[in-house]
Amino acid sequence: MLEVLPAEVSIFEVGMRDGLQNQPDYLPAEAKIELINLLSETGLQKLEITSFVSPKWIPQLKDNLEVATGIKRKPGVVYSALVPNEKGLEDALTAGMEEIAVFLAVSETLNRKNINKTTDEALEAVNAVTSGAIAKGIRVRGYLSTVFGCPFEGEIDMGRVAELTQELLNTGAYEVSLGDTTGVGNPLQVRKALEYLRTKLDLNKIALHFHDTRGLGLANVLVGLDLGVTTYDSSFGGLGGCPYAKGASGNIATEDLVYLLHSMGIKTGVDLEKLMACSRRIEELMGTQLPSRYLRANAGCKTNG
Amino acid sequence: MLEVLPAEVSIFEVGMRDGLQNQPDYLPAEAKIELINLLSETGLQKLEITSFVSPKWIPQLKDNLEVATGIKRKPGVVYSALVPNEKGLEDALTAGMEEIAVFLAVSETLNRKNINKTTDEALEAVNAVTSGAIAKGIRVRGYLSTVFGCPFEGEIDMGRVAELTQELLNTGAYEVSLGDTTGVGNPLQVRKALEYLRTKLDLNKIALHFHDTRGLGLANVLVGLDLGVTTYDSSFGGLGGCPYAKGASGNIATEDLVYLLHSMGIKTGVDLEKLMACSRRIEELMGTQLPSRYLRANAGCKTNG
Repeated sequence: MLEVLPAEVSIFEVGMRDGLQNQPDYLPAEAKIELINLLSETGLQKLEITSFVSPKWIPQLKDNLEVATGIKRKPGVVYSALVPNEKGLEDALTAGMEEIAVFLAVSETLNRKNINKTTDEALEAVNAVTSGAIAKGIRVRGYLSTVFGCPFEGEIDMGRVAELTQELLNTGAYEVSLGDTTGVGNPLQVRKALEYLRTKLDLNKIALHFHDTRGLGLANVLVGLDLGVTTYDSSFGGLGGCPYAKGASGNIATEDLVYLLHSMGIKTGVDLEKLMACSRRIEELMGTQLPSRYLRANAGCKTNG
Repeated sequence: MLEVLPAEVSIFEVGMRDGLQNQPDYLPAEAKIELINLLSETGLQKLEITSFVSPKWIPQLKDNLEVATGIKRKPGVVYSALVPNEKGLEDALTAGMEEIAVFLAVSETLNRKNINKTTDEALEAVNAVTSGAIAKGIRVRGYLSTVFGCPFEGEIDMGRVAELTQELLNTGAYEVSLGDTTGVGNPLQVRKALEYLRTKLDLNKIALHFHDTRGLGLANVLVGLDLGVTTYDSSFGGLGGCPYAKGASGNIATEDLVYLLHSMGIKTGVDLEKLMACSRRIEELMGTQLPSRYLRANAGCKTNG
């Protein structure tokens, strides 16, 4: 175990999208812009900044256009936004996005419940968005959700995961992020899943998106590292939550992830002090306390990290 | 990684000692007795219930005799208490303890600061307590602290860890728990430490005691499991904290540990619902919210685990 570790890992920061959409309160556009500009200076190179989704679905991100056009774009940083459909793609193009993310659930039940489509129909719709974006020169990232378990279906067929991932890649996504949407995956399951997937797919095209809802987020990352996956999604401070359990944690915290990686000599390019300043600023703006362990350990004692 | 996992793991519950001594408030003896009795019914088989230490050092546990003699002892459950010196051993004998724990820091600086002794002098004092206990038919567990890093000395020499562990075992301790006292250990370091220690010691005589101060607790456990260590210390709900950082997490939470183990098919004998009832009860008694992720995920939604 951990005989060979990646020298470098890429972090896809999803706090301003996945984190905020799971916070109950609305954060004004001006504050979002300030935070994205701050995040751009931490060394993070991939920032998901909003979602071009109907404000009826996610009112927290209703200011997507204002945010996407209001930020200062730092050279070398990739700014991405989630796009659920062709209307969203139009808006993302208007906002001048250079990268978008599309998403699809593996779970048939979830697709039926959420968008009243079969998974095949949902894939078709996603492929239309991807093709439309690629035609305009926009890079596309894919999300596959409920990969490690579905609140309705339970266990997920990895054959289907491999198939859908390959479909997303074939249509032009440069990478597919496999999501443990409700934080039910465990390290043994992640190992088995990745050992299977690497017989079907190039793991360099895979990112892992873990939630820390039951505390296993970083243990799952460790297995991903052991099997050579080099991109992980996380949220600064652990911003966000779980739609299925009030008060529970959502995305793994970027601070905890970065600390794990740096402590084992893996480079991320991220400055932990600057990153914690972003978390402290959003705590101040939202009047909340974020769950990142590393952040909490350094809240009262800045030299202790 | 994780090719071979233990079928069963033993959990040493330290919340009522290590947890409480790091909580700022005093919990009355009556409440402690209620909680220990509740913990006895969860399936946990090893409970550290107090410390026979001077109330000047740890006022939170000044009621050690009252607690140790007031609980209902459940057959099959081992009740243990920390004993720092010969005076403590006398008190533990008076209280009718059948098992005690002795402790020693690897760090020379910490021993000088805390007890004004060299490590060799501290070991001699610990050995006197161990021998005294063994002569009375009391089982002894050893703690070795600051094994994965010391706030004053930084990195710790594993040769010295092996040597001191062997000394504790030679004097009669049935097991030595290696402690990451300030939560600075990382998975790669734990792997290297255990790979070295297994060339010097029988890992069946070793327990691991991780703190989750920077979020790496369960990732470190995963490495321990991968290398065959089958006893882990934890605190129900994650009760406790870190003396070096206010608001930070201390011991790994027993709920998170049990969930990790059960999710990978490893038996513990612990009933998670009953365990969470203990955590909810102490939250109620202390007016606090405990940091266990699993507990928080199930706080509002009992069927979600």
